[in-house]
Amino acid sequence: MSAESHGAAEIHETAVVYPGTVLGEGVKVLEGAVVGKQPTLSPRSTAKREPLPPVEIGAGSIVSTGAVVFAGSTIGARVILGDQSCVRERVTVGDDVVLGRGSLIENDTTVGEMTKIQAGAYITAYSTLEEHVFIAPCVVTSNDNFMGRTERRHELIKGPTIRRAARVGAGAVLCPAVEIGEEAFVGAGAVVTKDVPARMLVVGNPARPLRAVPDEELLDA
Amino acid sequence: MSAESHGAAEIHETAVVYPGTVLGEGVKVLEGAVVGKQPTLSPRSTAKREPLPPVEIGAGSIVSTGAVVFAGSTIGARVILGDQSCVRERVTVGDDVVLGRGSLIENDTTVGEMTKIQAGAYITAYSTLEEHVFIAPCVVTSNDNFMGRTERRHELIKGPTIRRAARVGAGAVLCPAVEIGEEAFVGAGAVVTKDVPARMLVVGNPARPLRAVPDEELLDA
Amino acid sequence: MSAESHGAAEIHETAVVYPGTVLGEGVKVLEGAVVGKQPTLSPRSTAKREPLPPVEIGAGSIVSTGAVVFAGSTIGARVILGDQSCVRERVTVGDDVVLGRGSLIENDTTVGEMTKIQAGAYITAYSTLEEHVFIAPCVVTSNDNFMGRTERRHELIKGPTIRRAARVGAGAVLCPAVEIGEEAFVGAGAVVTKDVPARMLVVGNPARPLRAVPDEELLDA
Repeated sequence: MSAESHGAAEIHETAVVYPGTVLGEGVKVLEGAVVGKQPTLSPRSTAKREPLPPVEIGAGSIVSTGAVVFAGSTIGARVILGDQSCVRERVTVGDDVVLGRGSLIENDTTVGEMTKIQAGAYITAYSTLEEHVFIAPCVVTSNDNFMGRTERRHELIKGPTIRRAARVGAGAVLCPAVEIGEEAFVGAGAVVTKDVPARMLVVGNPARPLRAVPDEELLDA
Repeated sequence: MSAESHGAAEIHETAVVYPGTVLGEGVKVLEGAVVGKQPTLSPRSTAKREPLPPVEIGAGSIVSTGAVVFAGSTIGARVILGDQSCVRERVTVGDDVVLGRGSLIENDTTVGEMTKIQAGAYITAYSTLEEHVFIAPCVVTSNDNFMGRTERRHELIKGPTIRRAARVGAGAVLCPAVEIGEEAFVGAGAVVTKDVPARMLVVGNPARPLRAVPDEELLDA
Repeated sequence: MSAESHGAAEIHETAVVYPGTVLGEGVKVLEGAVVGKQPTLSPRSTAKREPLPPVEIGAGSIVSTGAVVFAGSTIGARVILGDQSCVRERVTVGDDVVLGRGSLIENDTTVGEMTKIQAGAYITAYSTLEEHVFIAPCVVTSNDNFMGRTERRHELIKGPTIRRAARVGAGAVLCPAVEIGEEAFVGAGAVVTKDVPARMLVVGNPARPLRAVPDEELLDA
């Protein structure tokens, strides 16, 4: 690999790493990745314009080809940010997380250690994912029941809360602010409109309880 | 930002802007973006091979990191084309549109001013989105009921028509040629197989009317 | 196009093509594409660490803007790998395949000749797509009913088998290991939980048979 080394990190020559970025030992930044980018506000945005603090990325983590990581976020150790993925500002990603190819974690979201977010998944802003969560490919989450209308939406905007060791199946859609309980299981293609109890398996549109998650599939079995 | 300035636009040194591209005052083209690309035809394609006219991008617009904009399209003023997004050829995008991260607008599509298309949404070819439309993350649209078979599909190919101020929820799927009425609301994960009347809220697979959109949520309330 | 020529291939100056890659006559590698990348393993991965053999790409194929192709795969002739798409390791892609913008073919998958995979589709690992298959935009596939739990999942992991000339509609979700029969048709937004017989059309969540595919739409009509 043609690359230049910054301290103990390895940065491909086609990658862009902004000044101030803190890269732990053994971090790799692959082809065309962009790390430490500031958000670009539209001319009519009323958001604050102070620069965000630099991003920090823990030892042994990999920012893969074409990935984009914004300033103002903290990425743990041994994390893989997949090819063409994106992590927005004010996101906290725990150790040993895997973010699949092309997936996106929006701003102001927390992802617990050992959680896996697979390819093409969309994690909306203001979400909480605890530890050992499994998000299958192309899962869709949302945070605004009003889709841009009314003033009170601003106080109600909220992504999902996905508890420890819960699993969400491929292509499932989570409505705003739902809570997926510990060790719960959302079937592929389910549309979750209300909270899912711990260890419950739900399927369908709208999602309905089907049965308890088998003991052998519990993380703490 | 290390960048070179072309007139009153700012182009990152890793971006590619093809000759002839017209960039309004204050346009920014971020890292790795490609602007003004000609379509690449397969060796066996029978499509016309004349080059498309250059793309024009209005004042104050931003082409974000890794975005791709084809020749032959016109982008309004103060538009944000999100990170890793893509706009194909012969597309017209109105002023103040936001195109979310990773989303795609296919060829021969029109998007009205103030419309928001959120992250990961897919807008198929031959679609019409009017003004103030809200497309939530990961919405899927389609334009060919025959999926590549029969000769008459060519005359029937048509994307959705989404009327002014309509809203389409996260992960919803729109079948070919459906019309979503003014101020209508498609719930998250709905599969829309036929037209949705103005101000109606639909949910489910297949989508069915649930109730009228509350007055307080109408754009023109 | 500013580009350098490697033999009879044309490689854009912003693309990265790793040593050993075999490019057929007339292959084009567009802006920012990365070809021949080795997988990057996490520090705690137990996977084998021998390098994969170089990727081979057949005559007349195009690796579009921002696309990523891993080592250890074989791409046929006249294939289009769309903008921002990705092909993982140990994948075999037949002649005349089209891979749409932003779509992903995971590792250890086979795609037959003349198959079209449209924009944003996700083809999971250990899948088989035969010839003349049509995958509509944003189709989701999966391969692990256990989503990371139990030891026996390793022997059961399996993507879909999609037989010759089958068609899968926009935003459809295929559960692990389902077989889609020859010339079958999966409606847009369907969630396929079990095998679909040849020439059957299914819709809904869960998907149910609706009627036979009309003769006029059969490839072999």
